[in-house]
Amino acid sequence: MMDVPLSTWLLFTPTRHHLHSEIVSRLPTGEIHRYHYGDFAFRAQQLMNALDTLGVERGAHVATLAWNDYRHLEAYFGVPCAGRVLHTLNVRLSADELAFVMNDADDRVVLVDRDFLPLLEQVLPEVPGVQHVIVLGESTDGAPEGALAYESLLTAEPGTYPQVPIDERSPAGICYTSGTTGRAKGVVYSHRSTFLHALAGTSKAGLAIGPGDCVLPQVPMFHANAWGMPYASVAVGAKLVFFAGAFAPEPFADLLLGERVTVTGAVPTVWIGLADTLASRPRPEHLDHIVCGGSQPPRALIERYQRDFGVDIIQAWGMTETSPLASTAWPQERMRDWDPAQVMTAARGQAGLPLPGVEISIRDESGHEVPFDGETMGALHVRGPWVTDGYLHGHGADSFTEDGFFNTGDVAIGSPDGYFVIADRTKDLIKSGGEWISSVDMEAAIMAMPGVQEAAVVAIPDEKWMERPLAYVVPAAGETITADAVRAHLGSSGFASWQLPDRVEFIDEIPKTAVGKFDKKVLRAKFQS
Amino acid sequence: MMDVPLSTWLLFTPTRHHLHSEIVSRLPTGEIHRYHYGDFAFRAQQLMNALDTLGVERGAHVATLAWNDYRHLEAYFGVPCAGRVLHTLNVRLSADELAFVMNDADDRVVLVDRDFLPLLEQVLPEVPGVQHVIVLGESTDGAPEGALAYESLLTAEPGTYPQVPIDERSPAGICYTSGTTGRAKGVVYSHRSTFLHALAGTSKAGLAIGPGDCVLPQVPMFHANAWGMPYASVAVGAKLVFFAGAFAPEPFADLLLGERVTVTGAVPTVWIGLADTLASRPRPEHLDHIVCGGSQPPRALIERYQRDFGVDIIQAWGMTETSPLASTAWPQERMRDWDPAQVMTAARGQAGLPLPGVEISIRDESGHEVPFDGETMGALHVRGPWVTDGYLHGHGADSFTEDGFFNTGDVAIGSPDGYFVIADRTKDLIKSGGEWISSVDMEAAIMAMPGVQEAAVVAIPDEKWMERPLAYVVPAAGETITADAVRAHLGSSGFASWQLPDRVEFIDEIPKTAVGKFDKKVLRAKFQS
Repeated sequence: MMDVPLSTWLLFTPTRHHLHSEIVSRLPTGEIHRYHYGDFAFRAQQLMNALDTLGVERGAHVATLAWNDYRHLEAYFGVPCAGRVLHTLNVRLSADELAFVMNDADDRVVLVDRDFLPLLEQVLPEVPGVQHVIVLGESTDGAPEGALAYESLLTAEPGTYPQVPIDERSPAGICYTSGTTGRAKGVVYSHRSTFLHALAGTSKAGLAIGPGDCVLPQVPMFHANAWGMPYASVAVGAKLVFFAGAFAPEPFADLLLGERVTVTGAVPTVWIGLADTLASRPRPEHLDHIVCGGSQPPRALIERYQRDFGVDIIQAWGMTETSPLASTAWPQERMRDWDPAQVMTAARGQAGLPLPGVEISIRDESGHEVPFDGETMGALHVRGPWVTDGYLHGHGADSFTEDGFFNTGDVAIGSPDGYFVIADRTKDLIKSGGEWISSVDMEAAIMAMPGVQEAAVVAIPDEKWMERPLAYVVPAAGETITADAVRAHLGSSGFASWQLPDRVEFIDEIPKTAVGKFDKKVLRAKFQS
Repeated sequence: MMDVPLSTWLLFTPTRHHLHSEIVSRLPTGEIHRYHYGDFAFRAQQLMNALDTLGVERGAHVATLAWNDYRHLEAYFGVPCAGRVLHTLNVRLSADELAFVMNDADDRVVLVDRDFLPLLEQVLPEVPGVQHVIVLGESTDGAPEGALAYESLLTAEPGTYPQVPIDERSPAGICYTSGTTGRAKGVVYSHRSTFLHALAGTSKAGLAIGPGDCVLPQVPMFHANAWGMPYASVAVGAKLVFFAGAFAPEPFADLLLGERVTVTGAVPTVWIGLADTLASRPRPEHLDHIVCGGSQPPRALIERYQRDFGVDIIQAWGMTETSPLASTAWPQERMRDWDPAQVMTAARGQAGLPLPGVEISIRDESGHEVPFDGETMGALHVRGPWVTDGYLHGHGADSFTEDGFFNTGDVAIGSPDGYFVIADRTKDLIKSGGEWISSVDMEAAIMAMPGVQEAAVVAIPDEKWMERPLAYVVPAAGETITADAVRAHLGSSGFASWQLPDRVEFIDEIPKTAVGKFDKKVLRAKFQS
């Protein structure tokens, strides 16, 4: 068989066959930008030439600090296809954190949206390796001295670029873990892994994206390549739609319905935030499925979207370290005649089935596999051609086993149907009197209680039981809830009396990490003080 | 990223998560055999152990001479997953041809269905390298001396097998071209190409197979791995349904409807043969799409399935040399509001769009790319990680270009929409007075004429024009057609008067190759005599 390297270039060549497919970006101003794959391919190649002209070496790291839009998409291809490495920076990081990851990655160029110039200005003095700041727009007004305008750079360049030889194991991208413990660590994606992950993304066992689809990746492009949705979409020529700027339900619904999106993906909070808006609109008839990951979507949310909007919410599980897609919760064929509640329990409510190519192993403390019995918890291990084998600069070597698996730090339970569900993060699991309590399960149960907006559960030290659960609860606007009501609700939701939290604290908001996950580190610190 | 080899073993591991998914085989006797992925995985591993016990070396070629059924599926995994090479023999070859390919491939073991014992008996004396004949059944009655019974071999073995190290570029399978010109040539599929092709098969830009699907690969498993459908299905845990034995519309329809198949695939003649039977049955509500390749399905067939059964026929194009899937004709998103007739012309009536990973180049005689203008013909070239870079024993080196493309021998036309269509085989194109006439187009037009069952067009030598078309026409049962009527029909179908065939011959049947394609070699010989 031909020795064709698996690369981002192979994901880019389909643009030749989809010149008239559309790419739509709703900009932070509310303005809608439209162009076609032909324009996109031309401009991405102009970017490759522009980086040559600037003397940016092959293999150099080129960072982006940007919203989801067409220019960010151009960088997704314009940077790696010519042999450079794309480093997507999380726009929600502090200046200190940004400086750390940019220095750690040794970034040489930054492509920056106008909205993030003030943030970049704070960072620049701390990152001496950066040689070029390129503002993603027409002008450099308000930008640091010496900055270049993206549009001026491109205008000067031809829109074709010769294919360069690429070793499939060379780096194509880099992304930092969100670092809920310790400092952020860099994960390097190779050309091979990026291609394979995108191809698996197009799979009907993955994101299920084909040439007939219209895809809106609402997960940020700065976070784990937006779950590979942009790469998967371009590989099959799907229409792409981007919503740049902070999420807001009304304009998002306008875009989703107006462009007749068929596939979209984001964390549960987006779909929670959108539901009431969608309910006041015409039924989203074109929307086939929503991929939902980052944290477990509440069962009531999946049910509501199915019932009220006729839309499948498909859970996906993964991490920055797994590119990120490792599993999706598509129901199996044999569940076709099952009652919807059964399918929810067996499939839709699970983290999923591994994608083809990914191997899952759930292990006890001695490293032996635990049975898929729907009960036994174990440490979730993953292996596959798009799973990292280490972090940048050799950090975190203790997360990898001798037989080549990555220990994810998640605790999972396998089911007799072959699915698995995340019970907790290893460090968030509560061990009370020798028995485990899942903080994730308890949170999900509290969040299903009427009048509750959010809830997070952490372990607090206890003299007698070693650890006990503490529940932080955010009541919905105008609602009053008591600790006893929370305990009573949990009792009627299947929790044993010894599992019920002795303490329930009411707060205004659950603190979140830069990628929108509950920040339990902050909650634990809150308890300590 | 982890250095996980892409292999058939990676396609096999998902069986762990789909133990209860079903595999159904309708045997030649009409009997239905049912079991589950758990049984299949157990028995495939028993087969790996049995081949060890027999002393069959890793890397040895193990042939199958078998229908589509569960035992053949066991060989699809049981042979390559333990490092041996699967050689699927075409059951329609003559004894001479079989002996040639078995010797050429140096086969050591043959797994044979009872139905093909008489054929094998003729071949065996000519293939001295074969060490073991294994009859796919309980007994060896009627088999050659020394033959073994598959079921007895398996019973003695454990149903687990340790993962063996596999170089992803090592051979997993071998398949011979149908050899419409000259002798058949062997194409060797690597583990890497088999994995990638299967993953692309699950893509919504490919066969579109997910965990919720029920797949009936009606293309023979002896022909180019049944288009990768069995590998793609197992990789995602889809239900599999097999129809063993000669095709017959009534029992096939029973199986298709009874098992509620969602995805199926075969050559056009199967769907032509099935249409009237389907019309007398309940609407096949579960059937989502039919993948149709091998030759171009008539437009009227695609329209009929859409109109009468609500089923999409998706054209696919490929060759043994391309694993075989290289393109599929899914409509693009921007065609959502188009008139069905427009979509037929632009997409459904085309050979398709390349699958992600595959590159297409249509070239003139000097090797330059011709424009995708819907008019210009050129030689179709293909490159990709599941395209062969040569034939076994170094044959056919002249089919490969310096820049790594395979010259397919097909003549294609690219369209402004990015699709391509096969105009002809290079050698079947008719050059009359310096202008090209496509035999494929003319055949399709004649077959669209009422009262015509089949038609084939070949070039015959002509003193004045160099070549002229000759049409062989098979009238439908009870129909009478005249040569003038054929010419008049072609004239009203858009053919110029100089293109019309001077000679039209009426025959009882178009001769076919072992894989069911029109055998123009025989027709040309018929004309010569």
